[in-house]
Amino acid sequence: MTIKDIQNYLGQFFDSVELEGSDELVISGPAKIETAQKGQVSFIANEKYAKYLSTTEASLVIVHRSVSVEEFSSGISFLKVSDPYSAFVFVLQKFATPRMIAAKGIAPTAVIGEGVTIGEGTSVGAYAVIGDRCSIGRNTVIGAHTVLLHDVSIGEDSILFPSVTCYDGTIIGHRVVIHSGSVIGADGFGFAPQSNGSYVKIPQMGIVEIGDDVEIGANTTIDRATMGGTVICRGAKIDNLVQIAHNCRIGEDTVIAAQAGISGSVTIGRQCLIGGQAGFAGHLELADRIHVAAQAGISKSFMEPGISLRGYPAQPMRDQLKHEAMLRNVGAMKAKLDRLETEMKELAKK
Amino acid sequence: MTIKDIQNYLGQFFDSVELEGSDELVISGPAKIETAQKGQVSFIANEKYAKYLSTTEASLVIVHRSVSVEEFSSGISFLKVSDPYSAFVFVLQKFATPRMIAAKGIAPTAVIGEGVTIGEGTSVGAYAVIGDRCSIGRNTVIGAHTVLLHDVSIGEDSILFPSVTCYDGTIIGHRVVIHSGSVIGADGFGFAPQSNGSYVKIPQMGIVEIGDDVEIGANTTIDRATMGGTVICRGAKIDNLVQIAHNCRIGEDTVIAAQAGISGSVTIGRQCLIGGQAGFAGHLELADRIHVAAQAGISKSFMEPGISLRGYPAQPMRDQLKHEAMLRNVGAMKAKLDRLETEMKELAKK
Amino acid sequence: MTIKDIQNYLGQFFDSVELEGSDELVISGPAKIETAQKGQVSFIANEKYAKYLSTTEASLVIVHRSVSVEEFSSGISFLKVSDPYSAFVFVLQKFATPRMIAAKGIAPTAVIGEGVTIGEGTSVGAYAVIGDRCSIGRNTVIGAHTVLLHDVSIGEDSILFPSVTCYDGTIIGHRVVIHSGSVIGADGFGFAPQSNGSYVKIPQMGIVEIGDDVEIGANTTIDRATMGGTVICRGAKIDNLVQIAHNCRIGEDTVIAAQAGISGSVTIGRQCLIGGQAGFAGHLELADRIHVAAQAGISKSFMEPGISLRGYPAQPMRDQLKHEAMLRNVGAMKAKLDRLETEMKELAKK
Repeated sequence: MTIKDIQNYLGQFFDSVELEGSDELVISGPAKIETAQKGQVSFIANEKYAKYLSTTEASLVIVHRSVSVEEFSSGISFLKVSDPYSAFVFVLQKFATPRMIAAKGIAPTAVIGEGVTIGEGTSVGAYAVIGDRCSIGRNTVIGAHTVLLHDVSIGEDSILFPSVTCYDGTIIGHRVVIHSGSVIGADGFGFAPQSNGSYVKIPQMGIVEIGDDVEIGANTTIDRATMGGTVICRGAKIDNLVQIAHNCRIGEDTVIAAQAGISGSVTIGRQCLIGGQAGFAGHLELADRIHVAAQAGISKSFMEPGISLRGYPAQPMRDQLKHEAMLRNVGAMKAKLDRLETEMKELAKK
Repeated sequence: MTIKDIQNYLGQFFDSVELEGSDELVISGPAKIETAQKGQVSFIANEKYAKYLSTTEASLVIVHRSVSVEEFSSGISFLKVSDPYSAFVFVLQKFATPRMIAAKGIAPTAVIGEGVTIGEGTSVGAYAVIGDRCSIGRNTVIGAHTVLLHDVSIGEDSILFPSVTCYDGTIIGHRVVIHSGSVIGADGFGFAPQSNGSYVKIPQMGIVEIGDDVEIGANTTIDRATMGGTVICRGAKIDNLVQIAHNCRIGEDTVIAAQAGISGSVTIGRQCLIGGQAGFAGHLELADRIHVAAQAGISKSFMEPGISLRGYPAQPMRDQLKHEAMLRNVGAMKAKLDRLETEMKELAKK
Repeated sequence: MTIKDIQNYLGQFFDSVELEGSDELVISGPAKIETAQKGQVSFIANEKYAKYLSTTEASLVIVHRSVSVEEFSSGISFLKVSDPYSAFVFVLQKFATPRMIAAKGIAPTAVIGEGVTIGEGTSVGAYAVIGDRCSIGRNTVIGAHTVLLHDVSIGEDSILFPSVTCYDGTIIGHRVVIHSGSVIGADGFGFAPQSNGSYVKIPQMGIVEIGDDVEIGANTTIDRATMGGTVICRGAKIDNLVQIAHNCRIGEDTVIAAQAGISGSVTIGRQCLIGGQAGFAGHLELADRIHVAAQAGISKSFMEPGISLRGYPAQPMRDQLKHEAMLRNVGAMKAKLDRLETEMKELAKK
């Protein structure tokens, strides 16, 4: 693919893709600016990395249209766009080699239950087990060893990597990606305490419902609702080893980083960002576009959209940072207090 | 099932199940009070939800026997019991549709090792692998793709969902439930440091022993002991993504929420409640009935039964809450300190 | 094995292995000092356990060469070495019964792709799936149900327990152990935010590279790099349920305890010790031999080798302990402040 080809390709996504330098060179692939070699394309989206412009071996660099590139131009071509980060992502997609998750068609060793419907173009990998009455849309890929219990429904163009487990009744939308080892729809953790100290299991009769364009990482667990549904809305992105308990609702385009844990019946709004290892108490709500810092502990609802939360128990970022600064100041306070005490004693003597 | 049938059924569990209203209506299923429709049964166990009594569409509501229901009775029937929450759980169990985890009998694709014994009525799912000399009791279900290495013993009426892994020598009791993706009996994390900075693996020669009536969530890991056993006692309930390290002992009816982590050689008493994401240092002990708050960090033993712990390092709830209140007060202290300093200066001038 | 045999065996590892007592007794196996029975071998490496020497039933105890054993010698034999802990580990290795992970050879139900090479002496378990162009060295064991996507390379003498998943392109060295449920090489968590609040997936085109002598616990996730490699260097030991994000580099002989989470592009030096549930922000670096306390939150780089870190945000141990002590002192400060205020008022009256 030549630089010209890349310019044309990016033209689909951006109003203006301005070229500085030669457009004929063939580009072999993408690379990070620090390690790029001759023939490779890279990008600068963050000023922090601008220093590499003078030393990079890259043949093509995608930069913001405001960047002045005259001084660097010897041997490097530049493409100038309004969002160099996204532009580079599109270039990555262009160069990505297709990954083979399961061979075309239904593997002869796949176990297909009764009343199952499978759409055209869908692949089912070796040893996959598809329970009774499951329905899988077109052009979906079910990896080897993935198990669907009965009555699971999956849309079109979705990918379940090998060794995913979906319990009965799970509903999965279109263009959903679920990575290996994740367990969707296991029983919510509900037990009714009895007077002798033991517990009676509360039947978990609901399901999990996953909207379109959701991506779920590896070894994540999303529990079925006690009644009704645990709902992951369209576009949400969930990382590895995340726990989402029964009856939660995760809003559209909300992003949850690795090892975060969401207790039962939590509702999180749209376009929130939840940091890694953050924890949520049960039965609370977050408004839209809230950011939760890594390792924060959310103990109550926050209904103001767009705020940032931090700490344990979490509070709005500004309050929490002020609180933390105050605590760091305790040593100085102690010194002042001791000095005042001494002065007081001297004053009292007089 | 009519309201009369439900009244009779609950009569097995409660001394008194008093009906107010019609007993003839057929109930189609259970629902939450906020979303219940005509023909459904719901419950009120918490005053917070009593407000829904005036608007619910439910045909039958289970309430505490102290609730006065005259004002609501138009069209709703009530069953009054001493514990409406547990009563509703029993109703849920009655309505729960049986889940099909594995077809009756031993799947032809299951691999059964030498010297294996399997009880009557037990199902083994597709592609399950049962190692040499394993023993499985009656009426147990082994899900598809579950792997038992050699010498594993499982009791009666237990359920291993698909894709559970039990390492060699694991002992599992009766009526145990283990959800998908959990790994029981992997090697404890033990390495002996050598003088050159590298490590020699300490062989993990013990086992995991799981008592009767234990439930273990999805993607949880319970490591085998170095010598002897890692023991999960009767009735313990363990959520998803929990880590229990080698040589731990978890007491009877103790409940451990998701993503908690218990380091090696920890002993936890009976009927404890461990919050989500709580962490334990190694080689310590908790007495019976101790509650540990979510995200707490337990750094030493606590031998007083029934206390609550919170914070990092965790301390008894009352001390910790006082400590946290004191810290929130630091801003006010600083203000007072600055004021005193000013007053002192003025006093000194005089 | 007689005591004499054990003495000779340990002679391979230590310059001096001195015997006190009889050397003829046959030893049946190892045990903890508190529970050891007649005929068993145990050890004392920590003074805390020395008290058991007067009551143990063990027939052989391995102790440090400085220990004076005259008073205990009736019926017990002693072996004195410079490192009794490591000596006992070697004895454990001697007594460990071989675990059967997969039968010799390639199981007839294993699915082997095109262009796969498998070394002599390697076992592939039932239902394992080996993708196209994978290469597996000699004397390696691939457990039942383990899935390798295409182009995975594994060295010699390695063990993948059942139900491990390796995505395409993963490179694994010699003598590597990976426990069940771990997922190596799933996509890094990278999405480019778009102006409408949704996300475009960033293709994850890199790989995971695991060096020789690495051990990885159960249900751990190590994500592939966006470009280049996520690298786990030789000798690193990683516990259960750990998250290692894209583009991380974990140094040689570094140990990471359970449920720790390492965000993207973090570089950790050699021989570090990372505590359980510790969390790392992205794009930072730790020098060699740094210790991170359990549950700590690392928010920036620390480049001084050998320091210890603790707290959130984490700081060097001494500063953090001083800070925590200062905070515990706030109650006393408040009392003194109130007293000063009263004295001031009295002084002002005069």
